[in-house]
Amino acid sequence: MEHLQDMALRAKKAARQLALYDTGTKRRALHAMAQALESNIPAILQANSRDVELARENGVREAMIDRLTLTKERILAMAQGARDVAALPDPVGQVMETIQRPNGLHIEKVRVPLGVIGIIYEARPNVTVDSAVLCFQSGNAAFLRGGKEAFRSNTKLAELLRQALEQQGLCPDCIQLLDDTSRQAATEMMGLRGLIDVLIPRGGAGLIRSVLENAKVPVIETGTGNCHVYVDRAADLQMAENILYNAKCSRPSVCNAAESLLVHQDVAAEFLPRAKARLDQSAVEWRGCPRTQAILPGIAPATVEDYATEYNDYILSCKVVDSIDQAIQHIRRYSTGHSECIVTQDEQAARQFAAQVDAAAVYINASTRFTDGSEFGMGAEIGISTQKMHARGPMGLQELTSWKYVVHGNGQVR
Amino acid sequence: MEHLQDMALRAKKAARQLALYDTGTKRRALHAMAQALESNIPAILQANSRDVELARENGVREAMIDRLTLTKERILAMAQGARDVAALPDPVGQVMETIQRPNGLHIEKVRVPLGVIGIIYEARPNVTVDSAVLCFQSGNAAFLRGGKEAFRSNTKLAELLRQALEQQGLCPDCIQLLDDTSRQAATEMMGLRGLIDVLIPRGGAGLIRSVLENAKVPVIETGTGNCHVYVDRAADLQMAENILYNAKCSRPSVCNAAESLLVHQDVAAEFLPRAKARLDQSAVEWRGCPRTQAILPGIAPATVEDYATEYNDYILSCKVVDSIDQAIQHIRRYSTGHSECIVTQDEQAARQFAAQVDAAAVYINASTRFTDGSEFGMGAEIGISTQKMHARGPMGLQELTSWKYVVHGNGQVR
Repeated sequence: MEHLQDMALRAKKAARQLALYDTGTKRRALHAMAQALESNIPAILQANSRDVELARENGVREAMIDRLTLTKERILAMAQGARDVAALPDPVGQVMETIQRPNGLHIEKVRVPLGVIGIIYEARPNVTVDSAVLCFQSGNAAFLRGGKEAFRSNTKLAELLRQALEQQGLCPDCIQLLDDTSRQAATEMMGLRGLIDVLIPRGGAGLIRSVLENAKVPVIETGTGNCHVYVDRAADLQMAENILYNAKCSRPSVCNAAESLLVHQDVAAEFLPRAKARLDQSAVEWRGCPRTQAILPGIAPATVEDYATEYNDYILSCKVVDSIDQAIQHIRRYSTGHSECIVTQDEQAARQFAAQVDAAAVYINASTRFTDGSEFGMGAEIGISTQKMHARGPMGLQELTSWKYVVHGNGQVR
Repeated sequence: MEHLQDMALRAKKAARQLALYDTGTKRRALHAMAQALESNIPAILQANSRDVELARENGVREAMIDRLTLTKERILAMAQGARDVAALPDPVGQVMETIQRPNGLHIEKVRVPLGVIGIIYEARPNVTVDSAVLCFQSGNAAFLRGGKEAFRSNTKLAELLRQALEQQGLCPDCIQLLDDTSRQAATEMMGLRGLIDVLIPRGGAGLIRSVLENAKVPVIETGTGNCHVYVDRAADLQMAENILYNAKCSRPSVCNAAESLLVHQDVAAEFLPRAKARLDQSAVEWRGCPRTQAILPGIAPATVEDYATEYNDYILSCKVVDSIDQAIQHIRRYSTGHSECIVTQDEQAARQFAAQVDAAAVYINASTRFTDGSEFGMGAEIGISTQKMHARGPMGLQELTSWKYVVHGNGQVR
């Protein structure tokens, strides 16, 4: 597909210029993008309503229609997002470290952009703007491929962002939206080695798996969260109840929501009935091990598949464990390495859990729902990495950069 | 291949234990490894001499025989390498950053090992020891696959390292050598997603290409260096001559050696004859553009292929350029992103070169030969990354780690 290669080449060229823009130039451009969105709300809504209409005709389910639908408020939030990103510190050019060598060499480790960042996403049009502005502020060209459901919305949004760049006298190719939403084009995009520096899939588990399997360019795996709350025998049970309720029910569709409860056998008989009563407020469906079932009669049994499932829904799997070691073993087996929580007043148990549980974020007495760029104080995020290479956990501007060593000498040879 | 999966599973299990070893335990183990090498020199030499013998019988070329051959000195150097690594700061457990949030959450960003590191390499048996000790000190299990020429040497070395671990009461599976040197086994190894966390190929361009093409696990691309020295019109020509000579001739077989000379047209007539005279001391063969040929009659023409070639030999391609911009463009086209050098007394030219040349290391008035973990003050290195993801430039202990966020709360919910 010539066209796609061409676009990527233009993105690469644009990325070279973008890497040299100073902070002020980038800030002005981001404000111009925000302004362009705010001034064109009717046109965006018009494009979006056509997307929504077609999605309904095609029988797309309501949850996806909700993600697809833009409102005036959502558009204003996107624009505000661009302004917020503009206010974040510019990572590019930061001197991360200076090394003075005995031979007189002065080495600076300087932050640089990655280059061209590919984003493959699904039905949420706000990802177009969120990703584009984060890539832009971190000096990277964004090569976007959204889902076919949001095609008209995404096209309109990308057009406005590009126009804003042009009006600022900057290269619009810093932001490019693939105009082919076929699966074939996505696969082609995943193969653009040497043109796309890193690919970040944003969406459900199926999308992420497909990208991991097909990509020939480096991928950052994001956002699958089979998260556990472990209630230790030394837990404050009122705290445990609050944390569990928040982790499960405050927003079940997101990746940092809890999917599974582990309870130490010493407190199971006391904790489970009250936890059940609390989660009943949100009509949570329980699936439990035999010991859970003995304490909470009438709930469904939990299968191995249940323990491995990220429900993203008002469903909770539950297991009573003999010990913290068994809890850690269970987490090792089923965790996707996103966010894991222990509730305990026992410092040694907390230390053991923090050391032995292998996840991007390990919580001691706090809800898993905090795994989020803003909650961690990074400003916006482009996703939450569940891999260890390059970046782990919430990925902000800094995680969209690499570095370069600039070595100053006066004739040194080796 | 069951066997290979089994080995990787054991490595993964060992990595979990290794991640928890404290610094003292790891140091003692590294000293025990060094001791084991020093005490078994005759046995290592015996295994190695059989490898060398077979390699000669198979008509392996001399350069490779040299890399394959161990001597008492080389074994002692490996042992010393293990002791040196033991003396480096332990990256595991370092608190990289602490974040205090307004809601009272206290977040620590803590360095953790990557897990299992796969190393695929060629004929140099010292890579077995160097890689194993760097992985070990950074808390990672090493899963090694050396070339068939060095099989007996590698087997002996790995056996000694594993014995040293066992004698310390530690898990020997932290270091594993694949006992199948077939190409099929290597390909199988590259497919162990979920078992090998990252694969680092160490060897020639062919090996690295093959790993990049076949791997289904994350790879860090290392060590291809088509490095340039650009002599600006504002260069101190004596300095330029010294740097060029050092970059080209001090060790042409390594990746940070220069392969190509770019000379500004304003100084070409003066610089090229003296550079030629200097490089004649090492009988360097020149291949030049027409303008180079006009100044240095009798040298061979440089083709596009020459400019794209990492000779790793006493050969130099040369091009006279109109401007620094043309030099940068040439480098963009042919550079592998390893090390690039400008020689100039003009600060603005230096700044432009440093900003616009996209390489792991950019040198202003110093030889490209300094791109090296020890020369950068990191201690040992496992390779030089020429990619931007995860790590760029020399990779020391720190570059073999990831991080984890440990979040301390007292009941916070969102």
